[in-house]
Amino acid sequence: MPSLLVRGGTVLTQDAARRVIRGDVYAEDGLVRSVGEGCPQDADVVVDAEGGLVLPGLVNLHTHSPMTLLRGLADDLPLERWLSERVWPVEAQLTEADVEAGAALAVAEMLASGTTSFNDMYFFPAAAARVASAAGIRAWIATPFLDFPTPETQPDRMPDLARVFTRRWRGHALVTPTLAPHAVYTCSDATLAEVAALRTELAAQVHTHCSETRTEVYEVEAARAARPVAVLERHGLLAGSVLAHCGWVTKDEVRRIATEGAAVAHCPTSNMKLATGGWLPLPELWEAGGVAGLGTDGAASNNTLDVFQEMKLAALVHKAHRWDASVAPAQRVLDMGTRDGARALHRDDLGSIEAGKRADLVVVDATRPHLAPLHVPASQVVYAARAGDVAQTIVDGRVLYDRGRYATLDIEKVVERAREAAARVAKAVPR
Amino acid sequence: MPSLLVRGGTVLTQDAARRVIRGDVYAEDGLVRSVGEGCPQDADVVVDAEGGLVLPGLVNLHTHSPMTLLRGLADDLPLERWLSERVWPVEAQLTEADVEAGAALAVAEMLASGTTSFNDMYFFPAAAARVASAAGIRAWIATPFLDFPTPETQPDRMPDLARVFTRRWRGHALVTPTLAPHAVYTCSDATLAEVAALRTELAAQVHTHCSETRTEVYEVEAARAARPVAVLERHGLLAGSVLAHCGWVTKDEVRRIATEGAAVAHCPTSNMKLATGGWLPLPELWEAGGVAGLGTDGAASNNTLDVFQEMKLAALVHKAHRWDASVAPAQRVLDMGTRDGARALHRDDLGSIEAGKRADLVVVDATRPHLAPLHVPASQVVYAARAGDVAQTIVDGRVLYDRGRYATLDIEKVVERAREAAARVAKAVPR
Repeated sequence: MPSLLVRGGTVLTQDAARRVIRGDVYAEDGLVRSVGEGCPQDADVVVDAEGGLVLPGLVNLHTHSPMTLLRGLADDLPLERWLSERVWPVEAQLTEADVEAGAALAVAEMLASGTTSFNDMYFFPAAAARVASAAGIRAWIATPFLDFPTPETQPDRMPDLARVFTRRWRGHALVTPTLAPHAVYTCSDATLAEVAALRTELAAQVHTHCSETRTEVYEVEAARAARPVAVLERHGLLAGSVLAHCGWVTKDEVRRIATEGAAVAHCPTSNMKLATGGWLPLPELWEAGGVAGLGTDGAASNNTLDVFQEMKLAALVHKAHRWDASVAPAQRVLDMGTRDGARALHRDDLGSIEAGKRADLVVVDATRPHLAPLHVPASQVVYAARAGDVAQTIVDGRVLYDRGRYATLDIEKVVERAREAAARVAKAVPR
Repeated sequence: MPSLLVRGGTVLTQDAARRVIRGDVYAEDGLVRSVGEGCPQDADVVVDAEGGLVLPGLVNLHTHSPMTLLRGLADDLPLERWLSERVWPVEAQLTEADVEAGAALAVAEMLASGTTSFNDMYFFPAAAARVASAAGIRAWIATPFLDFPTPETQPDRMPDLARVFTRRWRGHALVTPTLAPHAVYTCSDATLAEVAALRTELAAQVHTHCSETRTEVYEVEAARAARPVAVLERHGLLAGSVLAHCGWVTKDEVRRIATEGAAVAHCPTSNMKLATGGWLPLPELWEAGGVAGLGTDGAASNNTLDVFQEMKLAALVHKAHRWDASVAPAQRVLDMGTRDGARALHRDDLGSIEAGKRADLVVVDATRPHLAPLHVPASQVVYAARAGDVAQTIVDGRVLYDRGRYATLDIEKVVERAREAAARVAKAVPR
C-alpha cells in the first residue's frame, strides 16, 4: 500500500488532549505513523494541505444511503403522509439495481463531504456493501428486520438473509455487517427475540431506530407496558447498540443507555424536518457518561448527507432549546462527528489522528474567505466550514476524493445512473 | 455596459407564478431583457449554466459585515458575556481601516455564496460603503444611532454623520444610505425622535434591531410602558422599516408590523447560537400579509454570511418549533431569501428574474452528487444546495464572482488584510 504524506496543514488531532498541531501527517499501510514534527518528507502520495485544516474522517452514524433517489421528493409533509404518500410508494418500485445506484450516489456525496465511515440501514444491503467496498469507504451495513415485507423479502426470510450477508462480509477490511431491527414499533417481541439470538450467533452489532416520535413512544408504552428503551433492554438489544434519534427519551432512559454502553445517533436535521418535536437530552446523556454521534438520516428527510451541517445544527439546536448558549460547545460537537461516532461503532482505531490509528483523514481548504480569520480551529470547523470546503477525503491512507475527482468512482456514471433510477421510481408519486 | 447571456440553466424565475424555465437569461444595461425562449444567442459575456440552477441574487437582510474579524472569537457564551467579554473589548480596538478590512472579507464571502444585496449596520459606515461600491455588490448601509459612544463617534455627533454619509451616497447605483437606531433598548425616546426627524429630512429607510431577547422586551416594557414594536410605532419608526430578529413579538405585534408595511429580517442561526429563546411567529406574520426576509446577522453570532444556510434553517426551525412539517415549505422559504428580501428593501426591481428587472443572478452548479437527482428545483435550492455550490454571482449583469475568481476584489489581499486586522484586535480577549 503506498505511503502518504499530508503536508503543512493545521491538524486537529482529536486525541485525548484535543491537541492542534501545525505540521504533517504521515501514513503507511493504512495507519498513521507520525503527526507533526519528524514526519518523513518523502512518500508515494503527497497531499498539499498548506492553509488547510486536517481532521479525522467524519462518521455518519445513521443513514439510509439509497434514499438519495428520493431527495426532494418528500418535503414539507407530516411524518405519516411523508411515509404513506411518498416514501412507501416510491420504495415499492425499487429494484436491487436502483438501491445500488442510490447507494453509489450517497457514497459519492459522503466522500465529497468528508465522511469516511457511515452506518447504514436499508433493504438489499448487499448492494450498499458492494458499493462501499468498491469505493473504498468504511461502512457498517445492516440487514433489516421488521414485521412487514420489504421490496427485497418477507419477514420469515430475514434471519437467513442476515446469516448469508453477515458470513459474506464478516472480516472485510471496510464493510462490517450489522443487524437492524427497524424499531420497536415495527418489530414484535418475537422478532426482537429472533434478532437477539442472531446477534449472539453472529456476534454482530445492532443498529435501530429508537424513540423518534412521541406517538411511537406512547403507542409502544400502551401496547407493551414499557417504553422503547426498556423493550430493547428486556430483549438484550440495548447494550452496545446504536440507537438512532432518541428525541423522546427520559433522563432515566438516558442513564440506561449510558450504563449499557449503547450510543445515540443524533440526527438534528431529520428531527427538525420531520417535526418529530422531541430533543435528545444531550447534556444529560453526557452527564451520565453516554456517547452520541451524528447522523444525517436518509436524504428524503434532510436532504443531504453532510456531517458538517449536522455538527453545526447539533451545536445550535440545543442552545436554542435550552435557552443556554453554552450548551454543546464547538469542541464537544466536533467530538460527536469524529471520535464519539467511532466509539459508538466500537472502533478505538478510528476517530482521531494519532500514530497507530487508521489513516482516515479529511483536508478542509481553509483559504476561502468564510474560513478567515482562524481564531479557534474547532469553532471554524463546526460553525464556519461547509462540506463544500473539503479538498481531500482519505480512508486507510488512500486519497478517495481530491477536489472533485474520485479515485474509485466514475462520478458521471454514478450521477447518471441515479438520475435514471430516480426518474423512473418518482413516477409513483404526484408532484 | 457589456451584454450578458446566461445559457442553458434551469431558471427559477421567482416571478409571481414562480415559473421554472429551462433556458437562457439575457441582460443588457444591467437589466434582464428576456428569459427562456428567444434570447439573443450572442452577448459580450456568456456564462455557461448547463446543468445549473439560475436564481435571483440572494438578499441578506441583516448583517454587520465588519464582524467577520470576530469569526470564532465569541462562541458558546450567553449573550451578556458574549457582548461584554468578547464583542465589546474587540470592537473597542477597531479602527476605520479594520472595519474596511472586515467589510471587504464579508463582501468576498457573500459574493462567493450568492448574495447580491446586503443590509448592513455598523460603525464607520463609510468604510463598508466604499467596499461595496468598489466591489460592485448592492448594499444598504446604515449610520448607527445609540445612546453610547461607538469607536467612531459620540452620540451628539451621530445626526451630522448621518447627514454627511447620506448626502455622499444618495442616488448611488448600488449603495443606499439608511438610518439605524440600534434598538429601542439602546436608544432613548429623544434619540428615537431625532432619528424620526432625520428620516423625514433625508427620506431614508430605517434598519433596527427589535425584540431579539425576552429580557429586552420586558425591560423596555417596564421602563416605557410599551413593548419595542409599540415604541417604534409611537415614534413613527415602524412604517416601512426593517426589523431584525422579532423573536419575541406577539400576534398583535405581528399584525402591526404587517399593517405598517415594516418587514422582519429573520435570523435563525444567530437566534439559535445566542440562545435568544423566542421564535418569530412566521406563519402568523404571513397570515397577516407581512413580509420576512432572511439575515445572517454578523459573523460573531453565526459564524458565516450564508443565506443558503439561513434558508435551510428557516425551513427547519419552524417545523421543529410547531411540531408541523408543513410549516415554511421550500418555495415559501426561497421567496424569503429572494423576492421578500427585495420587498423589505422596497425594491420591486429586485428579487425575481423577469424582463425589466435588475440582472442580479446566481448560478448554482447542480452537477454535484448532493444535487442529484433533481425532482423539485425549489426544494433542491433550500434543502440540498450549499453556498459552496455557487458557480457565478452577478450584479447588474456583471459577473462579480466566477468559481473562485473575483472580478473586482484582489482576494488574496482581502483575506490577508482581514487576517492581520483580526490577529491584532483579538489580543483584547482571552482564548
